[in-house]
Amino acid sequence: MDESSVTQKEDDVADKDVVVIFDTTLRDGEQSPGATLNVEEKLEIARQLSRLGVDICEAGFPIASQGDFDAVRRIAEEVGPLTEGRKSGQPMVIAGLARANETDIKRAYDAVKAAPRHRIHTFLATSDIHLQFKLKMDREECIDQVITAVTYAKTLCDDIEFSPEDAGRSDPDFLVQVLGEAIKAGATTLNIPDTVGYTTPEEFGGLIKYLIENTPNADKAVWSVHCHNDLGLATANTLAGVQNGARQMEVTLNGIGERAGNTSLEEVVMAIETRPQTYKVQTNIDTTQITRTSRMVSAYTGMVVQPNKAIVGANAFAHEAGIHQDGMLKNQQTYEIMRPETVGLSASKLVMGKHSGRHAFRVRLEEMGYDDLEEQELNAAFKRFKHLADKKKVVTDADIEAIIADEIYQPQEIWKLNHIQVSCGDHSMPTASVSLTGPDGKVYQDAALGTGPVDAVYEAVNRIVGVNNRLTEFMINAVTEGLDAIAETTIRIQPINDEAYGFNPQTNMPFSRTYSGHGASTDIVVASARAYISALNKMLAAQDEQSSEVSVTA
Amino acid sequence: MDESSVTQKEDDVADKDVVVIFDTTLRDGEQSPGATLNVEEKLEIARQLSRLGVDICEAGFPIASQGDFDAVRRIAEEVGPLTEGRKSGQPMVIAGLARANETDIKRAYDAVKAAPRHRIHTFLATSDIHLQFKLKMDREECIDQVITAVTYAKTLCDDIEFSPEDAGRSDPDFLVQVLGEAIKAGATTLNIPDTVGYTTPEEFGGLIKYLIENTPNADKAVWSVHCHNDLGLATANTLAGVQNGARQMEVTLNGIGERAGNTSLEEVVMAIETRPQTYKVQTNIDTTQITRTSRMVSAYTGMVVQPNKAIVGANAFAHEAGIHQDGMLKNQQTYEIMRPETVGLSASKLVMGKHSGRHAFRVRLEEMGYDDLEEQELNAAFKRFKHLADKKKVVTDADIEAIIADEIYQPQEIWKLNHIQVSCGDHSMPTASVSLTGPDGKVYQDAALGTGPVDAVYEAVNRIVGVNNRLTEFMINAVTEGLDAIAETTIRIQPINDEAYGFNPQTNMPFSRTYSGHGASTDIVVASARAYISALNKMLAAQDEQSSEVSVTA
Repeated sequence: MDESSVTQKEDDVADKDVVVIFDTTLRDGEQSPGATLNVEEKLEIARQLSRLGVDICEAGFPIASQGDFDAVRRIAEEVGPLTEGRKSGQPMVIAGLARANETDIKRAYDAVKAAPRHRIHTFLATSDIHLQFKLKMDREECIDQVITAVTYAKTLCDDIEFSPEDAGRSDPDFLVQVLGEAIKAGATTLNIPDTVGYTTPEEFGGLIKYLIENTPNADKAVWSVHCHNDLGLATANTLAGVQNGARQMEVTLNGIGERAGNTSLEEVVMAIETRPQTYKVQTNIDTTQITRTSRMVSAYTGMVVQPNKAIVGANAFAHEAGIHQDGMLKNQQTYEIMRPETVGLSASKLVMGKHSGRHAFRVRLEEMGYDDLEEQELNAAFKRFKHLADKKKVVTDADIEAIIADEIYQPQEIWKLNHIQVSCGDHSMPTASVSLTGPDGKVYQDAALGTGPVDAVYEAVNRIVGVNNRLTEFMINAVTEGLDAIAETTIRIQPINDEAYGFNPQTNMPFSRTYSGHGASTDIVVASARAYISALNKMLAAQDEQSSEVSVTA
Repeated sequence: MDESSVTQKEDDVADKDVVVIFDTTLRDGEQSPGATLNVEEKLEIARQLSRLGVDICEAGFPIASQGDFDAVRRIAEEVGPLTEGRKSGQPMVIAGLARANETDIKRAYDAVKAAPRHRIHTFLATSDIHLQFKLKMDREECIDQVITAVTYAKTLCDDIEFSPEDAGRSDPDFLVQVLGEAIKAGATTLNIPDTVGYTTPEEFGGLIKYLIENTPNADKAVWSVHCHNDLGLATANTLAGVQNGARQMEVTLNGIGERAGNTSLEEVVMAIETRPQTYKVQTNIDTTQITRTSRMVSAYTGMVVQPNKAIVGANAFAHEAGIHQDGMLKNQQTYEIMRPETVGLSASKLVMGKHSGRHAFRVRLEEMGYDDLEEQELNAAFKRFKHLADKKKVVTDADIEAIIADEIYQPQEIWKLNHIQVSCGDHSMPTASVSLTGPDGKVYQDAALGTGPVDAVYEAVNRIVGVNNRLTEFMINAVTEGLDAIAETTIRIQPINDEAYGFNPQTNMPFSRTYSGHGASTDIVVASARAYISALNKMLAAQDEQSSEVSVTA
């Protein structure tokens, strides 16, 4: 650690290897309880991942349900060809996950094949604990199945990734055998997952080094790492993998994923950006898109980002946290190792007011990346914008994003909210009146009492809709500062009887089906009503879809 | 990685060194923008840190304000002597932070001296960038000041910790010199902070090793590590420090702290618990208190914990995330490396209903650790509990915690909320009527319109109270599941003109003074009104305190 490392960013090293970013926000991330996304949301996130510069987008697990299949297929068709703004000049590779069997692999291939660049990602567990308890097979059967699966996949497409699940707890010498056979059968990427987040950086780095040194024909494949954050070590483990030869990192935005989540894209990318002499690799990521992508993923999945989250938390950059600019400017480097602009966080927030016209609104939306809205969507959003600008002096980017999320990316409208009216207070009986339009086009009205205004609204809706569900989470956040801010409500509901809603083919366990809904308004009660209707519509749509779902066999 | 490592927890190793836990939630954690705590909240957290088994509690920065001084003094007096439930059998060491000058050190000593075990923690930056821009001194002057400061501190107490600020970016050979002199002058703990979160595990571990090997009389002090999470590497860096000889870890609950925060207590402790053969040390922490402590810190500071946070996030343990118990039980180890019970997360949540009496309520509170409530506090809480039990079938621990937080740990009541009444809806004018009792004992009433019900309430309060402030954050969370759940509102406000509110003596920059308030009710509008009054009262109390504050010179 000599004097030169005192600078805020190390000097860059020329001619470095590229480490490719495999983003699995839409697959492993979406498996977070309650993070369920609809197809429109997935498409919008995929478009943003393309702008961000992600190299490979794992778009879903096509065998899991018809909905998953359709989402992957549409991403392959609509986002697969895009190259605009991408550093690499190449479009994203669209990947689909498949267990190591023919049905899964064929289904994954059918979902991704429309993308100009596509990949099948197949996996089989190799740890004794998984072989014994989950798969009930021995090591020899395991190797045979890998060979059969990869060989078959190779008949469909060139780009094949194989993952030995729970590699972190597998016998390294058995891994060497399995991976050697996978390469021989045609795998082009070998991904080493620490499925349960159990390893430590030295250990995981050591494992990658050992596998690359000992697997026959190791140089014929790209080595990849996929870490989980159960002990808070995902970032360090992933970077240790890269230091030991891995050239693909599997990550999610905001580190979302099952349990404590996956490695955070933003953390590993910014560590490499900030410490180029240490990590000696580069990525194709446009770091200025990080903040926007993070916010979109958080808004659509309803997974909040804590203020002290590295890189993308609200407090991550000191100057955003209210510390006076004056003090910072004098000696910015004393407390800042990264510039907020590098991750696309701009200090200026002012955007538009009530006198801004439709053209200015459209231009601003385009600058923000919403360049693909249909005319009627634009009209609806503009109407909401004018309505808001009447109430609020200054409309910011965050407000506009909330409007877009609330107006455009909503599930199919089965029930539609017409009006609500509420009266409440600490010495009165909270009462709500609600008017909804049903799937039959008729208008339904009812009123109910509740323990509070939101409860009263939900009870009134329940009287009309009559769907059995349980509220598992309820959250309201102000989108911007100020008393007149838009409030965004996120809620999650679960069907009371969820036996019928399928299972996760990876774990062989039932899926926890939770439906999130979001709604935005300057009135928190109205925002909450919208959120509830949105979640109900998601749940009802999924129940319809369920009945037409393909059957899954393990 | 042999077969034995396949088990969920490594076998323990006997006769291991203890690594002591220095918790700085109340000092570095409380410096997070908006995390400001009042004295009662700090005392309650300190009591819980004692139950958790924290070895050293850094209670504050006594020179920063009279409020900080008083909080540290009361923690020293009231929590300093406690030993109940502590694995180590010893009470906590209460530490106070001080810059390396006589005034600061004397003030810190006066604040902590009432504790049976107390420590002065003094610091001076050693990186060239800090020496040049912040301190405007050369290396020689730096060494002189360290010697003078530690020597003086030693005349007051035996237990002296010295930290070379920004050690991560300091010249290691200069550090060796400074630290050698600090030991000679009487420092008993040497803490190496990576102030800006810039280092990587190998680098930081290497630095600790280098310093211990090269500093004269290194064995006469305990070596400590203090990391920040700007690149997501705080946990890995801290553990690398321990593997290279550090025997104190400086941490905060939930990893709160400035910017991306500090090392998370729960992550490093559980990594050591789960991987004893790798880390070969033990802690005095009672891990079953982790969940409760995490929730208390989150509730009091208003710093939310994201669902995918390791160890303490809502999704961190699979079985909490709604995955069916059946599937998990069969092969629990396949996806679980820690048991939820180990961190005090119990699956059963049912506690009490409307027929539970006062005695049962008190017993439950005592089981939950609230054994120090005064009679009138207990009465107030019981009244709220009965009121809630009338509305809600099942009252859980989480509900009770919300009641206690709302009822007991509130700031001094300057303005008191009597009643509110609200009417709103998407086609009406949101209107609120508010009745408050003022500091003069008189009742004030007014009404106002707003963009929504909360805005209307706040506008009505503002008409009465007339204090200039800006809402910077607004958040509502349901405490439990179900439509009839209690909602907890957290808000943050900033005085519009905050020039007068002091500065942070560590950074020489103005403090970002933000006041959080929390309120709980089944009615989100009532909860929001309570939160606003609570934040206003905090702000008004601080303004009173400000006028009597000691002057601070750098």
